[in-house]
Amino acid sequence: MEPCFLTAAEAAARIRDGKLTSEALVRSCLARIEARDPQVKAWLYVDKAKAIATARELDKRPPMGPLHGLPFGIKDMIDTADMPTTYNSPVFQDYRPARDAACVGVARFSGAVILGKTDTVEFAAAGRRAATRNPKNFGHTPGGSSSGSGAAVGDRQVQLAFGTQTGGSHIRPASFNGIYGLKPTWGSVSREGAKQYSNMLDTIGWYGRSVADLSLVASAFRLHAVGEVSVPEVASLKVAWCRTPFWNRIEPAGEKALALACERLSKAGATLVELTLPKPFDGMFEAQNTIMMGEGRASFLDVALEFRDRLHQDFHDRVGNTLGITPEKLIAAYDLAADCRRAFEALYSDFDVVLTPASPGEAPEGTYNTGDHVFNAMWTLLHVPCLGIPCTTGPKGLPVGVQIVAPRYDDARLLALAEALAPVIDLETPLYAPEA
Amino acid sequence: MEPCFLTAAEAAARIRDGKLTSEALVRSCLARIEARDPQVKAWLYVDKAKAIATARELDKRPPMGPLHGLPFGIKDMIDTADMPTTYNSPVFQDYRPARDAACVGVARFSGAVILGKTDTVEFAAAGRRAATRNPKNFGHTPGGSSSGSGAAVGDRQVQLAFGTQTGGSHIRPASFNGIYGLKPTWGSVSREGAKQYSNMLDTIGWYGRSVADLSLVASAFRLHAVGEVSVPEVASLKVAWCRTPFWNRIEPAGEKALALACERLSKAGATLVELTLPKPFDGMFEAQNTIMMGEGRASFLDVALEFRDRLHQDFHDRVGNTLGITPEKLIAAYDLAADCRRAFEALYSDFDVVLTPASPGEAPEGTYNTGDHVFNAMWTLLHVPCLGIPCTTGPKGLPVGVQIVAPRYDDARLLALAEALAPVIDLETPLYAPEA
Repeated sequence: MEPCFLTAAEAAARIRDGKLTSEALVRSCLARIEARDPQVKAWLYVDKAKAIATARELDKRPPMGPLHGLPFGIKDMIDTADMPTTYNSPVFQDYRPARDAACVGVARFSGAVILGKTDTVEFAAAGRRAATRNPKNFGHTPGGSSSGSGAAVGDRQVQLAFGTQTGGSHIRPASFNGIYGLKPTWGSVSREGAKQYSNMLDTIGWYGRSVADLSLVASAFRLHAVGEVSVPEVASLKVAWCRTPFWNRIEPAGEKALALACERLSKAGATLVELTLPKPFDGMFEAQNTIMMGEGRASFLDVALEFRDRLHQDFHDRVGNTLGITPEKLIAAYDLAADCRRAFEALYSDFDVVLTPASPGEAPEGTYNTGDHVFNAMWTLLHVPCLGIPCTTGPKGLPVGVQIVAPRYDDARLLALAEALAPVIDLETPLYAPEA
Repeated sequence: MEPCFLTAAEAAARIRDGKLTSEALVRSCLARIEARDPQVKAWLYVDKAKAIATARELDKRPPMGPLHGLPFGIKDMIDTADMPTTYNSPVFQDYRPARDAACVGVARFSGAVILGKTDTVEFAAAGRRAATRNPKNFGHTPGGSSSGSGAAVGDRQVQLAFGTQTGGSHIRPASFNGIYGLKPTWGSVSREGAKQYSNMLDTIGWYGRSVADLSLVASAFRLHAVGEVSVPEVASLKVAWCRTPFWNRIEPAGEKALALACERLSKAGATLVELTLPKPFDGMFEAQNTIMMGEGRASFLDVALEFRDRLHQDFHDRVGNTLGITPEKLIAAYDLAADCRRAFEALYSDFDVVLTPASPGEAPEGTYNTGDHVFNAMWTLLHVPCLGIPCTTGPKGLPVGVQIVAPRYDDARLLALAEALAPVIDLETPLYAPEA
């Protein structure tokens, strides 16, 4: 089998055991990119020579860290010192940052091999969409704004990649691409060097093809207690499945995924309880939008002044506050979020984990509409860690996942829970790529 | 009189009226820097030729914005594309960012002339201290971490400068240098391109030598409703003076400043009431420290991995969580802050503005100890706008200010209140520099 089809954790083990070189792994990924990416269009930039040279260097030295020798893709609104960073914006086509973003630095100094930059919605916010197509059906979006990262990992072109989430930009593409994704607790990964949209929301996450892949990256970022929590027995777990207050926007495929996940867990002995969130949570979707748009005023002011007519109108709209967001509305949104954070965590005395949709259904048609973030926005604003797990397929045969959610800073426990739950929930994903 | 002694607002008016050129203003500041800075050591880098060339260009063209032609200093943990950015760190001495930080871009595209970079505590956090000395007494600190910006504006070397505040790094130096400073509402100015310490706390602010100076910059940043709030009559105002729960750390000079400000306001007809903050506020100083240190874990991980032994131990301590901050403690701190934000703003039905110490007293001796942030940390965590106003001097003849505080996003009203209150409070500052 081609090494590109290995998960990151499998590849890491083989490299550690001397059964695989980083160079062979990187070359396999690059070959896959060459074969597939003219159609998928996940990458805005790939530096083959540099990736191979880095892999060779890593093959010669003792392990640098948990990501030693593993290929990594970087969403192109995250700065890289040795590659262009375009934010997929027409006004940043020639931008070459002088320094890696903090998260790229952590990956690199943990041994990752940066293959290149993946396509994104402009500034991970609005404006220009990624050209990326869903690897499972080129007529559909891979989701966004982490379009290229989701598609590249889904298409087995790279083992790991960074995405970001302000609304639903990370977990939704995980669902649409049939892959695993972790959006860690807000604040636990530095956003320095990533394009800023919203202080209160922006979160850097990563994609992999197994829970173990996500844990590898979590250990590189030294998330609290990662690797110290033992994996529970499924039969010992009480899982709270949650439709959320936004169930009116679910699609049949999303409903099917949640029902199937519950059914499989129940069959495996888990106790399933329905969680109905208290009334104040009804306002959390609007609150997320208020904060995102309200904070967007400041985030895009510099580019609005610098690039004027050349900047997409979407960003001028944010700077100009065309939604008319008042301070009162913004403050109410912050305060509601704070209340709901506490209320949400208090609920955990009654169960172990929350299971909830990762997307309304399968990926929409075309590449303009990257999907609805209604099943993600609330969790982003709650600052809680979310972990996307593949589950089933929709009417068009495209992947649809679910997500599990834990209290703030419980990322390590969420990963341990996922180790137990994922083998039960994720029954339909072919072990490697469909055509492998 | 030398143009460097003009306030920003005075200089802006003269430039607008054709009575002063930006070039003459910039040359005057550069001459002042040349004369004074070998002793004060406020600047890490000054680009004279570029500043003069920019001023000349601006003199030829119609106004770019509210800062047209005004000299500006940039705290050296904020990126600049055309000047080195060292973060005052030994490991970043050769760093040249490819792009201006967002706030620098806004200043530049609003017409500011960037003179150079001002000294700072390393990463605006810990480690190496600025070499800057208090312009009023070289044996004392100008405060920190915004050491150079505070001193340069205080010493009439530049009209305006950016500082930042995570604990008390902006308003405390304003007090120690006898200048005005605004720390706007958290989230209202983009932090992109400024070294990150704490997501929940980091705030970019600016110094000036009058309230009008601060308003000029606030209008460049389009803070909500700036310029739309009318200046109230002092006699119509109810001012709540607040010792804070940390009064045991006040010094005689700080006590004197608060008492004098109250006395002057009362004499001018304002109603003074004492504000005793509710019990939960007692925990806000510790909560700020928990969040700053807790979030510092992630902020310095990349440099800890990259620079290892070359990085100051202070940052390894943060990454290694030597304080042992638990998720429980961090969550409790976030939740307490959210409660106190709401509780604080609810108090405003009883008064118009809060008046409180800006620092415990005058600047400490030496340059290592930049002073105690105990009278700033709580306000930073509350996310509220704080405006430093000079008031009096301490036993060594060094300046001691006070600050006024408004609810979140009430920056415009705070500036209007300051227009009314500052002429009453700030009676002792010589109109220009002491030796002018």
